[in-house]
Amino acid sequence: MNISLIPSVEHIKEEELKDKVVIVIDVLRATSVIVTALANGAKEVIPVLEIEDALELKSDMELLGGERKGLKIDGFDLSNSPLEYTREMVEGRSIIMTTTNGTRALHKAKEGDKIYIGAVINGVSAAKKASDEKKDMAIICAGTYGKFSLDDFLCAGKIIYEVLKRGEYELDDFAAAAYMAYRDNKHDLISYVKMAKHCKYLISIGLEEDIKYCFTEDIADVVPEYRDGVIKL
Amino acid sequence: MNISLIPSVEHIKEEELKDKVVIVIDVLRATSVIVTALANGAKEVIPVLEIEDALELKSDMELLGGERKGLKIDGFDLSNSPLEYTREMVEGRSIIMTTTNGTRALHKAKEGDKIYIGAVINGVSAAKKASDEKKDMAIICAGTYGKFSLDDFLCAGKIIYEVLKRGEYELDDFAAAAYMAYRDNKHDLISYVKMAKHCKYLISIGLEEDIKYCFTEDIADVVPEYRDGVIKL
Repeated sequence: MNISLIPSVEHIKEEELKDKVVIVIDVLRATSVIVTALANGAKEVIPVLEIEDALELKSDMELLGGERKGLKIDGFDLSNSPLEYTREMVEGRSIIMTTTNGTRALHKAKEGDKIYIGAVINGVSAAKKASDEKKDMAIICAGTYGKFSLDDFLCAGKIIYEVLKRGEYELDDFAAAAYMAYRDNKHDLISYVKMAKHCKYLISIGLEEDIKYCFTEDIADVVPEYRDGVIKL
Repeated sequence: MNISLIPSVEHIKEEELKDKVVIVIDVLRATSVIVTALANGAKEVIPVLEIEDALELKSDMELLGGERKGLKIDGFDLSNSPLEYTREMVEGRSIIMTTTNGTRALHKAKEGDKIYIGAVINGVSAAKKASDEKKDMAIICAGTYGKFSLDDFLCAGKIIYEVLKRGEYELDDFAAAAYMAYRDNKHDLISYVKMAKHCKYLISIGLEEDIKYCFTEDIADVVPEYRDGVIKL
């Protein structure tokens, strides 16, 4: 079996996802938010591309969450900080979500046979679930504004590292690079990820606690699945 | 100043090279061959895209070198093994060269302000020469058949590591990933690079000695420059 790693949304070739298990990663912060929300009892997350789509879909029942330029959107209930998605806030609720990179990556992942949501906080569980499928895997790094982003790369490396404990896979070169980045830095993920431009930006707008949370390993054991436009457990 | 790293030939946006110092890397093996040939007294290397171009250009004076699928081309004097480019063979000679990845990368680098040839064997010298320009830098990994290749990535990491000793640069995320890959593996480059598919292929056709040579650090102190279609010191 093979694992290919896709560096950013712009590098997705949709036809190459067919029959594969796909893991979508936008670790800072969309997929960390989704995992957190569902771990805390949210009913589902509905990812949409545009703010207008979110406003249109919303009735009295749903929460609106997301960001533009890392900040909460006017009129939304929640920003893109996973720390806001507490059990008190989200239990039993549907969340309509729009983010800059993660929701685009999800929409472009549609051809996958299964589409799982990966993050550092659920890395071991995501690796287990994906390797249980015994299929070729494609891991998508959402990236930042279409560009390769070091934070997603490191998260992908963690998941690949865990997948390789569970089965025999051949890695493409980009997957191998991510695997070794994690292998060589798992003692201190934060120092590594602070080299990422997007990480520096989030720190500059006061979101360092989010980064620490998003790089805390395996505090969630859920693996949300994206199917027919909705993300659920 | 900034350093951007380009993952493969297919990712080159020629207009983004303008006014930059460009370093082209195809460490297995085109740029290692070019550095070796010029260090051993070759007059110049003329990179061409197609075998027919090479045959057409050749008079009685030049040597023909290059590869397809890693192997010597019928009727050529030399393959793409740097070990063949000895002083006895190349001193004073012009070499017309065609390779699958490296010569394509050179042709697409034309917009650069200066275009230097980088390899592991001349990494420190290439870093010094490029940083002396005090300009933004773009480092091109030729890659393998248009795809990202781990060997070029590691070589780029070495050059970036050396550049950062000599000046203040901001790295894009891909350059940062390469820098850290080298930083974390400089005690054993060969083990790292053996994860590369292209490296495995070269070993399978009996070229392991080439890999050892191409990953021997800083045995050459020349930095060839590509200008007006010709590579010289």
